[in-house]
Amino acid sequence: MSRFFSQRYRDLTPYTPGEQPKDTLYLKLNTNESPFPPSPLAQKYAKNASGSLNLYSDPESTILKKAGAKALGVPESRLIFTNSSDETLNFAFMAFCDESRPAIFPDITYGFYPVFAQVHCVPYREIPLKDDFTIDPADYSGMRGTIFLANPNAPTGVLLPLSAIESILKSNPESIVVVDEAYIDFGGESAIALLPEYENLLVVRTFSKSRSLAGGRLGIGIANESLIRDLKTIQYSINPYNVNSMTMAAGAGALEDTEYFEKTRREIIENRAVLTKKLKALGFSVLPSAANFVFAKSPKISGEALYLKLKEKKILIRHFSLPRIADYNRITVGTSDQIETLIAAIAEILEE
Amino acid sequence: MSRFFSQRYRDLTPYTPGEQPKDTLYLKLNTNESPFPPSPLAQKYAKNASGSLNLYSDPESTILKKAGAKALGVPESRLIFTNSSDETLNFAFMAFCDESRPAIFPDITYGFYPVFAQVHCVPYREIPLKDDFTIDPADYSGMRGTIFLANPNAPTGVLLPLSAIESILKSNPESIVVVDEAYIDFGGESAIALLPEYENLLVVRTFSKSRSLAGGRLGIGIANESLIRDLKTIQYSINPYNVNSMTMAAGAGALEDTEYFEKTRREIIENRAVLTKKLKALGFSVLPSAANFVFAKSPKISGEALYLKLKEKKILIRHFSLPRIADYNRITVGTSDQIETLIAAIAEILEE
Repeated sequence: MSRFFSQRYRDLTPYTPGEQPKDTLYLKLNTNESPFPPSPLAQKYAKNASGSLNLYSDPESTILKKAGAKALGVPESRLIFTNSSDETLNFAFMAFCDESRPAIFPDITYGFYPVFAQVHCVPYREIPLKDDFTIDPADYSGMRGTIFLANPNAPTGVLLPLSAIESILKSNPESIVVVDEAYIDFGGESAIALLPEYENLLVVRTFSKSRSLAGGRLGIGIANESLIRDLKTIQYSINPYNVNSMTMAAGAGALEDTEYFEKTRREIIENRAVLTKKLKALGFSVLPSAANFVFAKSPKISGEALYLKLKEKKILIRHFSLPRIADYNRITVGTSDQIETLIAAIAEILEE
Repeated sequence: MSRFFSQRYRDLTPYTPGEQPKDTLYLKLNTNESPFPPSPLAQKYAKNASGSLNLYSDPESTILKKAGAKALGVPESRLIFTNSSDETLNFAFMAFCDESRPAIFPDITYGFYPVFAQVHCVPYREIPLKDDFTIDPADYSGMRGTIFLANPNAPTGVLLPLSAIESILKSNPESIVVVDEAYIDFGGESAIALLPEYENLLVVRTFSKSRSLAGGRLGIGIANESLIRDLKTIQYSINPYNVNSMTMAAGAGALEDTEYFEKTRREIIENRAVLTKKLKALGFSVLPSAANFVFAKSPKISGEALYLKLKEKKILIRHFSLPRIADYNRITVGTSDQIETLIAAIAEILEE
C-alpha cells in the first residue's frame, strides 16, 4: 500500500479469484468455466466486430438488448448489459445500498458480496444458512436493507425454489431483492417470471457459465424500467462504453444460437448426475446441485488435503478455508473425459 | 429515478458522451475516434482469442504487460491495464481522493473528472485556465489534493510542456499528479520519462485514439509499483477480470505493430496541419493542437449554429454549451477525404 492510498480502503480485503495457472497442463475444475468453446455463431460475430474497433462501442448495447429480449422473453427496456455480472452487482451495491440500507446475504454465498459492501462503505449483515445449507425464507422477512441471493447458491449449488423467492419479495416491498442467477440455466426456475409483479426485483445473469463466454466478460441486469434507469445512471457516471464491441457481438451470437446453448447445458446437467453418482460411490456426501459444479466432502480425507493432492496431480478444484464449509470442495462439472480423469485421481488418492 | 435509488447519487449528473448515431450515414468527427481500422495484427490476435472465451481472461493481463513494457520502455510491474482509460481514472479517483484529498483540475478539461468526483463523493476544485487556454503551473503549486491534468488537454488540444508537468510534480510531493495522456501520441512529450524520479506520478493512456481500439475498451495506468498495487487493490475489489481476452489480444497486437502505429499517427498529424490551414483560410481561429482534433471558432457563425448546420448535412462535430468555450467546436482530424468533405460543407454554410 502506498502512503497516498485513501483511508477509505486501507482495510479493504479484495476478492480472491480461483487460481488461473499460466500453463495449460492443469485440468481446471476450479472456476466453473464451461468445458465447451463459445457457440460458433458467437465466435463468428466477434471476429466480424474486430475490424471496426476504431469506433466506440454502443453504450446502449442495442444488438444485445434485441437478442436478449427475444431469448429471455422480456422487453428491451428491462435490460442492462455490463462488463461481467460482477459489474451489474457492483452497480447494484452502489445504486441500492448505503448507510441506511445495508446489504443482507447468507453467511455462505458468493464471496464477492462482502467485498462490494466494503468497497462502497456499505454495512452488511450475514444471515446463516440452515445446517443443510438451505435458506429459510422466514429469515429474510421484512428486512431493512438490500437482499442479495445467489440462486442456485455458490459455492453450495443448492437451489431456492421460486415460491421461496416470491415470499421474500412479498415480505420486503420496501427493499430491493437481487437474485443472482449465474447458474440458473443448469437447473433452476428463473425469477424473471416474477418481474411483472415485483418492482423490487433485480435479476442478474452472466454469460460466463452456460453461454461459454467467461473470457468475454458479459453480464445482464433484468428489472423494471425505473431500476434499470438507476443502474444506467451509475453506468454513465463510471464507464458509459462499459461493454466492448467484440463482446457485444459474441453475446448476441450466444443468445441467438439456442440450439448450441441447449445442447451444451444439457450435457453439463447429464454430466453432473454422472459426477455426483461416481463421487457418492467413492463415499462422498454431495449436496444436491442445480449448478455446473458440485459441493462434496469425503469422510476419508479433509477438503484441503484432497485439494492439495489433486493439485499435485495437475487437477485444480476449489477449496474454501472457511467455517462450516472447510470439509468441502467445489468441483466444476466438466466433460465425460474430464470426469473420468478426476474420479480416477481421487480413487488413487483415497487408496494411498 | 426509482424510490430505491440511494440518496448518495440522487444529485448525480452522469457524463454525456458524444452522439453515437445508429445509422452510419453520418461523417463522425465528434468523438475523436481514429479513421483507420485497428492494426491487422490486432485484428488477427483478437480473432484467435475468440475461440477460447469459455475460459476466464487473465486478471494480470500478462501478454499486455509484456507488450506494453516493450512498447513504452517501462518495467511490467509499473503497468495496470483496465477496461478503458476511464476505468483507470475511476480507480484513481477511488484510490487517491477522499474527503481530505479533493480532486483538483482545470475548469476546462475532460468532462468526466467532475462526474468521477461526484460518484465517489469526493470534493473537487476547478482551477481556471488562462485566457489563452494554457495552464500556469504556478496555479498548481503546493496543492492539498489529487491533481488531474489531461495533456494535451481536452477539448482544447493545448499541450503542457514536460517542464511544466515536472514543476507541478516537484511542488506537490505529498499529492498524486495524474497525467491523462489520451492524446499524447499525436504530438506531446510523455510524462513517462519522469516516472523514475517522481513517486507521486500516475500516467494514464488509452488505446481508443492512436491505437484505433475505441470499441475494444482498453486503458493503461503507469506509475511506481506501490501506486500500481493500490490500483490493483481497487481492481480486485470491483472486477478482477476487468479486461476481456479478445481486447487483451487486440491490445497486444496494437502494441507490437509499431509500423502501423507510426504510419497512422503520422498521417493524423499531417492531416491536422491541413485541417488547421483550411479552417484558418475560412477565417477560423484554431488553437494550437497536439491532439487528433482541433478546437476552432469562426467570427462569422456561433459554435452551436455551425454544429447544428453541419449536423443537417450529416456531419457530426462536438459542441460544448459551456462558459468560455461556447463559441468553439471540437473537430476530430479525419482522413484527407473527410477533411475535404467537412471544409466544403463549412464553406457552403458560411456562404449561406
